[in-house]
Amino acid sequence: MPHRLLEAVHRRPLDRPPVWIMRQAGRYMPEFRAIRAKHDFLTVCKTPDLATEVTLQPLNPDFGVGVDAAIIFSDILIPLEGMGMQVRFDDKGPHLDNPIRDVAAADRLVVPRAAETAHYVGEALAQVKERLAGKVPLIGFAGAPWTLAAYMIEGGGSKNYSHIKGFMYNHPDAFHRMMDKVADTVIDHMVFQLESGADVVQLFESWGGVLSPRDFRTYALPYSRKIIAGVKAATHKPVILYMNGCGHVLEDLADAGADAIGIDWRVDLGEAFDRVGDRVAIQGNMDPCMLYAPIPQIEAEVRRLAAQVNGRPGHIFNLGHGILPDVPVAHARAFVDAVKALEHAAV
Amino acid sequence: MPHRLLEAVHRRPLDRPPVWIMRQAGRYMPEFRAIRAKHDFLTVCKTPDLATEVTLQPLNPDFGVGVDAAIIFSDILIPLEGMGMQVRFDDKGPHLDNPIRDVAAADRLVVPRAAETAHYVGEALAQVKERLAGKVPLIGFAGAPWTLAAYMIEGGGSKNYSHIKGFMYNHPDAFHRMMDKVADTVIDHMVFQLESGADVVQLFESWGGVLSPRDFRTYALPYSRKIIAGVKAATHKPVILYMNGCGHVLEDLADAGADAIGIDWRVDLGEAFDRVGDRVAIQGNMDPCMLYAPIPQIEAEVRRLAAQVNGRPGHIFNLGHGILPDVPVAHARAFVDAVKALEHAAV
Repeated sequence: MPHRLLEAVHRRPLDRPPVWIMRQAGRYMPEFRAIRAKHDFLTVCKTPDLATEVTLQPLNPDFGVGVDAAIIFSDILIPLEGMGMQVRFDDKGPHLDNPIRDVAAADRLVVPRAAETAHYVGEALAQVKERLAGKVPLIGFAGAPWTLAAYMIEGGGSKNYSHIKGFMYNHPDAFHRMMDKVADTVIDHMVFQLESGADVVQLFESWGGVLSPRDFRTYALPYSRKIIAGVKAATHKPVILYMNGCGHVLEDLADAGADAIGIDWRVDLGEAFDRVGDRVAIQGNMDPCMLYAPIPQIEAEVRRLAAQVNGRPGHIFNLGHGILPDVPVAHARAFVDAVKALEHAAV
Repeated sequence: MPHRLLEAVHRRPLDRPPVWIMRQAGRYMPEFRAIRAKHDFLTVCKTPDLATEVTLQPLNPDFGVGVDAAIIFSDILIPLEGMGMQVRFDDKGPHLDNPIRDVAAADRLVVPRAAETAHYVGEALAQVKERLAGKVPLIGFAGAPWTLAAYMIEGGGSKNYSHIKGFMYNHPDAFHRMMDKVADTVIDHMVFQLESGADVVQLFESWGGVLSPRDFRTYALPYSRKIIAGVKAATHKPVILYMNGCGHVLEDLADAGADAIGIDWRVDLGEAFDRVGDRVAIQGNMDPCMLYAPIPQIEAEVRRLAAQVNGRPGHIFNLGHGILPDVPVAHARAFVDAVKALEHAAV
């Protein structure tokens, strides 16, 4: 039987949409926190047995949340180590201790081979794939180049993205050269994931939404487009392009070559289907904070979003951004269950 | 002669748009930093002579940036002290040490009288008004209720707005009662500013862009609408409604009763005029980070934005968000000069 997620990505009709949750293997689960209490974040990413274990936690029949897909536990910054970046994580998030602040540093970056510098990702994917035994599909992922470049140039999270924007406005040629290397790195990383067991990959443009439409089209989108084309040419597997804060460039996203686009909760889902639902599948988009609401309100929100889609094919249910660490597991489960209950609802 | 800013707010034809800069009295100016080296942020806000001095700095003929309006130096959190909130500022921004985390705390909030609890704002406005001698108009301002409530409930800046969203989803009635009190506080504060010398007021919905369209319409917009109606009924003065991250609710903003809407840089300015430029004046919207670019690029961006407006009346030039502290003053001045040079450009 074909997987529900893959059917939806290809916009085939289904009795209900598939559902998964961005960051579904995460701190909101006590079983995940138990692993993280013993191992730091990068150790979990780089140890195939641990990455396999946490990847499978949300699917566990006893304590999981019942999602329709697994997504490999890893981080979008993993491929950057092979490029020459020093990446570490603490409670406040990622830190890159050698941020790119001049043209020479950008030009020193190299394009690594994922099979060499990130072989543990492939090993984890192969293990997960085997453990899943075809029950649900397996998602691989990587960061989109502008989002990765933001981390590389800012050196971590950022409020105003002053450093990356200053760099791209003052050194556009060097910036484009750097983005080309990041794109090649991501293509190789995604192809490696698909060859190692992933059935579909998602490209995360987490911070592209801080760009003006013109800057997004100049400095970010061409590199996501290049990645999608490269990955699809090499593997013929589907690609989902997710962007946070994407409402103003939805048509650009839909034309980037991806099979599905993932949208944040600021976009009206019905409007998104009206605008681009005839061209791509659409993934999303409940506000992650809605999982703080009482369960009946979460269920009502799922039904409201489904009503906006109104039976059109190509909907993949998800949050509009990653699940937050302090959400009760029961609320995440209620979200998934409410999507599954749509099968029995009058459409 | 009528002021250029007020002409534009009323969508009357002009030879060039007026220009001012959000946070134009700010740390990017060495003369401002010199004052702040001697006095902390709240002291400057609360000492009319100091507030007057920094308000006038961007208009100083020797070291200013040549803007077409003054905006009173103050902070959107000032009215919250009278409501019962403890507000302090450090290098990382504002902190409210008694955040609202339960219904009882929300219900304890009071609606203060600005003339009593924020009299210094009125004194500063009166002094500035006199010093301006009619040369440029004077802008007063306040925070929109959802943005203020975010600070009150989160206790400061926030990444995910978990506390406020959790509060509003779980205690909607108490949340609406609280928002009503915040709105009444802001009405009184704005009317007080207009009676003390302000010619126009701007309502800052800085964080409303983190809400889904439905939540924005349910929890935020009705209170901004109430404020605008209340202020206009009491004073018959114009109101500008600014919102960061507003592209997905532009029509809602345009229908909120304000004379002008301020938009962020993620909205295409020409599209904004197409969508709502027949109903309201539009203020904005260059990316604040564009001021890091070389000056010729800043000038080209001003001309590009003006070309998008294409001579339609009702444009007020500004950035799409506040000017950043590390921008060179010469670049801010180049931005203003480029707008002024539009007077001589073929339109």
